[in-house]
Amino acid sequence: MSRTVAVEKVQQFCVEIFAAAGVPRPEAQIVADVLVDASLEGLDTHGISRLPIYVSRLLNGRINKQPNIKVERVAPALANVDGNNGLGQLVGVRAMQVAIDLARESGMGFVAVKHSNHYGASSYFCKMAAEQGMVGMAFTNTPPGIPPWGGRKAYFGTNPIAFAFPGQNLPVVVDMSSSTVARGNIILAAKEGRPIPEGWAIDSEGNPTTDAKKALEGAVLPMAGAKGYALALAVEVMSGIITGAAFGPQVGWMYDDSLEPVNIGHSFLAIDIARLMPVEQFTARMQQMIDEIKSVPLAAGFDRIYIPGERRAIKASQRRQQGIPVSDVLQADFDRLAEQLGVARLDV
Amino acid sequence: MSRTVAVEKVQQFCVEIFAAAGVPRPEAQIVADVLVDASLEGLDTHGISRLPIYVSRLLNGRINKQPNIKVERVAPALANVDGNNGLGQLVGVRAMQVAIDLARESGMGFVAVKHSNHYGASSYFCKMAAEQGMVGMAFTNTPPGIPPWGGRKAYFGTNPIAFAFPGQNLPVVVDMSSSTVARGNIILAAKEGRPIPEGWAIDSEGNPTTDAKKALEGAVLPMAGAKGYALALAVEVMSGIITGAAFGPQVGWMYDDSLEPVNIGHSFLAIDIARLMPVEQFTARMQQMIDEIKSVPLAAGFDRIYIPGERRAIKASQRRQQGIPVSDVLQADFDRLAEQLGVARLDV
Repeated sequence: MSRTVAVEKVQQFCVEIFAAAGVPRPEAQIVADVLVDASLEGLDTHGISRLPIYVSRLLNGRINKQPNIKVERVAPALANVDGNNGLGQLVGVRAMQVAIDLARESGMGFVAVKHSNHYGASSYFCKMAAEQGMVGMAFTNTPPGIPPWGGRKAYFGTNPIAFAFPGQNLPVVVDMSSSTVARGNIILAAKEGRPIPEGWAIDSEGNPTTDAKKALEGAVLPMAGAKGYALALAVEVMSGIITGAAFGPQVGWMYDDSLEPVNIGHSFLAIDIARLMPVEQFTARMQQMIDEIKSVPLAAGFDRIYIPGERRAIKASQRRQQGIPVSDVLQADFDRLAEQLGVARLDV
Repeated sequence: MSRTVAVEKVQQFCVEIFAAAGVPRPEAQIVADVLVDASLEGLDTHGISRLPIYVSRLLNGRINKQPNIKVERVAPALANVDGNNGLGQLVGVRAMQVAIDLARESGMGFVAVKHSNHYGASSYFCKMAAEQGMVGMAFTNTPPGIPPWGGRKAYFGTNPIAFAFPGQNLPVVVDMSSSTVARGNIILAAKEGRPIPEGWAIDSEGNPTTDAKKALEGAVLPMAGAKGYALALAVEVMSGIITGAAFGPQVGWMYDDSLEPVNIGHSFLAIDIARLMPVEQFTARMQQMIDEIKSVPLAAGFDRIYIPGERRAIKASQRRQQGIPVSDVLQADFDRLAEQLGVARLDV
């Protein structure tokens, strides 16, 4: 069961909780924005459902409440960022802003980030660039989730690659994990005691499983077999290797009992379209492509063709009006958090 | 049936043919290098098997024999390139060299290319960057091959995305089309009268087919369903939209009878690793990852785990010693070309 809560209330609740957990208010605001954006877009696995675990890790010191994020510009178009073990959403927003600033000056910017944490949905950061008339790209590694092709033990994370492109109306957003599904779907299923579909995962022995808990001990399968493996590896290099962050099984998992920083790596890329062609020309070409795609004859069983990111935008528009669903399980977690931190409960 | 021919002979034959077709000798050398590299790596669909069609298009004027490739640097890290309808391999090599030069100066470079042609395998250009201690990335569009998810008519090309990363020994190369298979596999099957496996393609009515010719009139399926569609779209933007090249169904197909330029677009990206961390540290981290991947316990039915690009490197090493296979069909094409252009035939 779940109920829906107005966006502003959810947002404010997240800010108050983070602030009470020791995150300075301006930073709490940024992190809440990223979480609420994911929940608005229907990415429930990457949104406010993560609040309890983040807060737990802020409180036990595994995530740094007040990180000193260091930005080192190493070339006209490059910067290294040390996230100082801050919340991934905060580190990600700061780093993408640096990429945008570099791109404004040099035409493009690439920012390599180490010592970070799980940053939520990649799309948020890419959209930051698109809102500035830029192409945005983001890479991140995550704790081991998928095996190399031919192996039966997880090595890579579910490593997403993401792009956002400015459009005449909405940005076009491509955000895909290298796995059949994002691990968040399995975490959520495990939490809610639901089975997962066949084909998503194997257990620790390498056998197919529909048990979400066994899948978390085993591995998620890469999408498209060897191709998903190759993409996961490329994303690992772009996030774990080139940044100086942890990679492969060295990436920590925030859900276990360790107090060690997880040392996730990301990278962000921004290209200033206006230097290559007028942005109006770019967005007109995007719109032409969108119109043409929408008029492709339909395959059996489909009643329309969606543009990547369109479903999320539709969902966000609905939820902005109707509110964000909060499951009973999540509400109970929120109530516990509110009590623990002396913050007002989240009401409908 | 096929026989094998020494690499140097194949290479020299390609140079002589291109030169006789009107391509200046230094440029003929570059294009031959790219084609032979693909054949060495076992990418028979993207190597010397394309020589006859390229030459035919040079001779009938659809591809420009002596293009005036224009490079316009538009920002410290950005350039636009107009390929002037030259051979894609030549335009690609020039453009990636510009990206490398920009990266040497600004830390990274991005080059947007229009008015080009089919450039063969993306891996060649990415490896150019890796050989300079850089990350290389390449995007290209291709004639319509795959439908958007939910459609039954091809809109996007089989749009590959490719990366190369320097390693301690060999570069690690990720090169994947957005489709279940590269269209070249279907072109080759059609040419040799072979059927294709189920699941690769649909015919023009949207029905599954194993007939290669019907598949060419229909569409190749995207890999991993909606994800392959999303990736194809991202690659289309990065190669067709942002460059000013053709995109979607406006991209011409060099195998048809038109004389219009195909106006394929590419983009190339290079990141100078040394500005972010010492290259030796990067390659040591790559090697650690490779060693760790290789020691992951095997899944049933596998006897080893390959690193992306490793099979190609093994194949190239074999073929460098044993020669490149030339099928009877291809040999007949080569003989015809040699006679037509007054060039010595390719002998074993």
